[in-house]
This record gives sequence, structure tokens and C-alpha cells, in this order.
Amino acid sequence: MRKRTPDHRLLLGPGPSNVHPRVLNAMTRPLYGHLDPDFLAILENVQSQLRGLFNTDNRMTLPLSATGSAGMEAYLGNLLEPGDAVVIGVAGIFGERMCEVASRVGADVTAVRAEPGTILDDAEMAATIQQVRPRVVAFVHAETSTGVCQPVAGIAAAAREVGALVVLDCVTSLGGLPVQLDDWGIDAAYSATQKCLSCPPGLSPISFSDRALARARSRSTRAHSWYLDINLLAGYFGGERVYHHTAPISAIFALSEGLVLIADEGMEARVERHAESAAALIEGLASFGLTPLVAAEHRLPMLTAVVLPERLRGPEEAKLRLRLLQGYGIEVGGGLGSLAGQIWRIGLMGENARITNVEALLCALRRELA
Amino acid sequence: MRKRTPDHRLLLGPGPSNVHPRVLNAMTRPLYGHLDPDFLAILENVQSQLRGLFNTDNRMTLPLSATGSAGMEAYLGNLLEPGDAVVIGVAGIFGERMCEVASRVGADVTAVRAEPGTILDDAEMAATIQQVRPRVVAFVHAETSTGVCQPVAGIAAAAREVGALVVLDCVTSLGGLPVQLDDWGIDAAYSATQKCLSCPPGLSPISFSDRALARARSRSTRAHSWYLDINLLAGYFGGERVYHHTAPISAIFALSEGLVLIADEGMEARVERHAESAAALIEGLASFGLTPLVAAEHRLPMLTAVVLPERLRGPEEAKLRLRLLQGYGIEVGGGLGSLAGQIWRIGLMGENARITNVEALLCALRRELA
Repeated sequence: MRKRTPDHRLLLGPGPSNVHPRVLNAMTRPLYGHLDPDFLAILENVQSQLRGLFNTDNRMTLPLSATGSAGMEAYLGNLLEPGDAVVIGVAGIFGERMCEVASRVGADVTAVRAEPGTILDDAEMAATIQQVRPRVVAFVHAETSTGVCQPVAGIAAAAREVGALVVLDCVTSLGGLPVQLDDWGIDAAYSATQKCLSCPPGLSPISFSDRALARARSRSTRAHSWYLDINLLAGYFGGERVYHHTAPISAIFALSEGLVLIADEGMEARVERHAESAAALIEGLASFGLTPLVAAEHRLPMLTAVVLPERLRGPEEAKLRLRLLQGYGIEVGGGLGSLAGQIWRIGLMGENARITNVEALLCALRRELA
Repeated sequence: MRKRTPDHRLLLGPGPSNVHPRVLNAMTRPLYGHLDPDFLAILENVQSQLRGLFNTDNRMTLPLSATGSAGMEAYLGNLLEPGDAVVIGVAGIFGERMCEVASRVGADVTAVRAEPGTILDDAEMAATIQQVRPRVVAFVHAETSTGVCQPVAGIAAAAREVGALVVLDCVTSLGGLPVQLDDWGIDAAYSATQKCLSCPPGLSPISFSDRALARARSRSTRAHSWYLDINLLAGYFGGERVYHHTAPISAIFALSEGLVLIADEGMEARVERHAESAAALIEGLASFGLTPLVAAEHRLPMLTAVVLPERLRGPEEAKLRLRLLQGYGIEVGGGLGSLAGQIWRIGLMGENARITNVEALLCALRRELA
């Protein structure tokens, strides 16, 4: 093990992921004002490109001025009023967080749970939705705490059958897996910039359908948050461009460049690259006794949860992660909640979804576990 | 008037201000993970430097992961519960915003108002505080909508006399005027990075006293916002450094460098530079018939509100601002609310508080108004 931590980091945890130098350089652009017509043209273009990534016509698609967790608050806080019923699919920590956020809003939360590492059961979700007839159904597309990819269409259809709004956490999926808001019938979705978009953390791309906006407009109480109130955000991010808060200019410059890189590559090639990298990772890790937590058909390509062999569990795994970081500049993620000390979460997100990065990790593991 | 807008902007509005190239370059630093020991050392240093700027020993001093308006929500949302009484000093739009934010929390708001361009009356604030005996007293140090600098000590003393927590909006003052949280007896304060700190917008430096933290810990209801809950933020920004949300790494790199520049210059020299620039601006604008809105003893140095002569009021002023932007790349701010079309707000903030910038604006005005 080398004595000093290398300055470079290969970020193979659950995010942030590494950022392309072109995106970093975009932030050296001198600031414009947030109401400057030239800046607003850039923002308009960012909003348009985000619509493309989300596969939606939703006008109200925008980069929220805070991280992904604030995106979660934005849609639950805008669509739910105190006493409203919400059904939340919980397949890991981020589903749990949704319950916590919704309950702070004052909503009446019914959680449908899945064992860590498995998907939500469509039939159980549908039965609960039928019984509760909630105003909102919320769940996670790519559960970052377990590496599970949740099929969306079945739950969304069940929700719409009872007239519920459907909200989807796309934090880790957007930019690495196809996201089809309009085809799937999703009313509100949020993501984050530091995962498969390979931009710095700090913004949460969100999208509200007209149905969702109508709901927000017809609330009988104001949303608790002024900062996240979509009715006010619509003034700036919609056509009028009136002042609400000061948009984070440099972060939007970065996102703009990151979206150009994605458009240049094309989502098809990008999805394939994520899938290939994940396959190589799983194959390589098998030789160290690290096996996937999730059944093959439900694995995320951009985040692989692997169960550690007995000898590496508990305090050992944290020490090994620290050796990888300090000796090789490689970051991988530990488990959260009941999976802490039991699994690793290895991200190959956005720019990082490359065979060479898989090899770098395997090489470091070979040296450390030899 | 030139045909094309220059690419460079001289940002002399109410913020953002221009950012030093060293701060822009800091954002090209490749990302670290938000739990990386080397990143946490940088964050620790940023928190320590912010304590110095706020002149406080408050351990819980940190860069909140959203803009200044979220800072406002953070302290009102953490310190107030539904039904709590709050007295808010309103001397402009940002005081009004406080009332709106507090009322969404469910607080019982009593506003004490001042005419636009004047300060709050200490005696009226004290009398109202005595009568209401609120849990929280909140007001704005540097009211960005009018250019008024509010004396702090008198109101803070009146609030503490009834045991109220005192919260102060330092969005525009921090880094350009002395801010003395501990000496003034302030329990919670927030600022923003894009004003006198001359960093990109996106972060809100905040500081909570131990009294304020004790209040947040002893609430009988959870704060509505999970994202802004100081009890949860304390887990990451306090000693434990446990995951809450992903900190905006690049923005913190930028803030770190911006704080180094401020430390290198020293606050005394910086305050003097702001005062000198404002004096030169006011002297220069007089020749065009633009006169200060605010009495000399209550003027902010970093933001000067000037009343437009009759011939420039209404639609004319917006046209002139556009000519300054498109012809010279110079941004100045218009009035808000009842002052729209009547005043300009000219910022000389942080890096921009320099005589040469005053001259650039005066030169452009000479050409346009000749």
C-alpha cells in the first residue's frame, strides 16, 4: 500500500461519478446574470435536452437548484397536502426516505415493502393501490441502496387506474438507462446530476406533467416550501422568466456541457456501454468471491451491489475500501442500513462506465487480496 | 450601440457578482467523493473560514446545499413550529419573503414594516416584541431590494430580553460589511455565495447557535423539510460526517478558494474597498440626475439604490438597462415591487467593488445619455 493518497480519484461508488474535463471546464466560463437573455437561452436549451432524456413533452422540465434529495421533496411537497393518501413502494433506503419526506408533509403514508435486493411486487402494489385509492403513488426506478432496477409500467398503470398521480425517482437511472416518462405514464420525476449525467452534484433535474401542475395549482393549502413550490418555480423556468431565486449559473453551464456529451454519444450507445461494463465487473468480481445481491433480470447496470465473502464482512470491508482509496485513489461504496458491512455498491456511472475502469478496480483488488 | 452583446459581463446588479478566475478554476478540480477524508478536510476548512467571516464560534456553521432563499427556509423551518409566534422586520422584498416563508411553516406572523428605503424603527420593533413575546425575531441586515443597511444590535437586544431567538438575513452583507453574530447576539444567520463572497450562486452559508440547535432538537413536530432539517444536516456537517445528501463538491471547491481570497485581502481592506467604490458611484451618478434612495447613514456600500430622473422612469429604464447589457456587457438591476420602474439597484459586490468598474458604468452612461 502506498503511503499517500493519489490526488486523482476514480469514483466507483454510488455517486458522484467522475466528470468529463469538458464539463469541468464549462464552469470556468465567466458568470452571466440569471435574467440575462444569453443565459436564459442556455437554460432553455438545457430544459429542452432534459425533456429529451426524460422522453417527455412536459414543458415544466427543469434543473432544480439543489441536490436530488431536494427533488424528492419538491414533488412530494407539491403534490401532497396534509391528510392526502400516498402509496410508496419501498425496496431500499431511498424508498424509505420517500416515506419520511411524505410523512413530514403530513401525508397518510402506506408503504409496500420488498426485501432488500428484490423488486416490488406488481400485484401487491396494485392491490394496495386499489384498496387505498391514494392521491399519489411513488416509487424508485433505480434503487441506489440495493442496485435493483424496478419495472415501471405495471405499477404506473395500476396507479392511473385509480386516478393517482405517479411519481418516479430517477436519480440513478437517468442518462444510463432509458427513461420514458410519457410512455410509462409518469406525472413527476426527479433525478440528480452526479450519477449517470456525470456532472457535479448540486442540481436535480425534475419534470412535472400538466396533470401534476394542475394538481399543484388546485391545492387548498400552500406547499410548505416556498423554495420548491412548483407554482413559483414555473414563473422562472416557464415562459415568463421572472425572478424567484438566483439560479446556480455555473452548475447550469456544467449541466449544459454534460448534456451535449450525452447527445453526442447517443443514449443507445450509452446504455450499451453501461451494460457491458456491468457485465465485465460481475464476471471479474466472481474470482474474489463477490457475488451479485440482485437476480440477473433485475440488476441495474450503473450500480452493482455485491455480497462480500464472510472474511471481508464487518469492519474488514471498511478497511479494504480505505486501502483502495488511499492506495489507488479508487472509491467504492459500502452498504446502507441493514446491508452495511455486508455488501459493496460499485458504481459504473456515466463517464465511468468503461471496461478500463473495471480493470483498474480488479487490478487493485488482486494486489490487496493476494 | 454595438450590434452584438459582448461575451464578457460586468455584473453590477444585485447579484450574482463577477467571480475571480482563481475561483472559476477551482471548479476544474476533479471531483472527490462527499465522504472522502481529503474532501472532508477541505469542507472542515471552509466551515472554519465561514465562522471567521460570521465572527462566531458556532460549531454548526456550514455551506447549505442550495441558494440563499433556501437558507431563509432552513432557519425559519427549523426554529418555528405551526402556531409559533414570530416577529419579522419588513423593510423590503426580502423581509416580505420571510413573512411568506414563515407563514407556510404555519407560524403566527407579526410584521413590523418600514417605508421602502428606510430602516426599521428600533422602538417600534422593541414594543412589538414586548407585546407579542415571540419565539423568533427575524430581520434583514442588508435589504437587497432597497439598499438599506439595518442596525442590528438594538433589535437583537430587544428580542433576547423576551427570550426570543434572533435570526438575521446576511445574504448581501457577508464579505462586504462586518458581520458579528456572537457580539450582536444572533442565533441563526444565512447568506449566499454570489454576492460579496464573489463565488457562483448555489450555496447558502448558514450558522446556528447552540441555543438555536437546542430549539431545533426540542421541537414537538419534525421540520417539514427533510433536506433542510438541521438535526439531520448536523450529522454530515458536524463531527460524525455521516451521509445525509450528496454535498455539491465543485461548488464547495469554489467557495473554498473564494474564502482564501477574502482571507488574503483581509476584511478591513475589503470593507474599505466597498465603501470607497460606493462613494465614487454615488458621486458619479449625481451628474446624470440619479440620486440615492437611502439616507447616507443607512446606505449599504455593496448595493446602491438610486432614484431615476422622471425621463428615465417606467419603460425607459428597462430599455436603457438592455442597452447597457447589449452594448457594453454591463448588467445593473431594476427595482422590485412598488419600486419597479422607479429605481435602479447597482451592486459593487466582492470582486466588483472597484473604482474601475464604477468608471466603466459611468462611461457607458455618458455615451448612452449624451
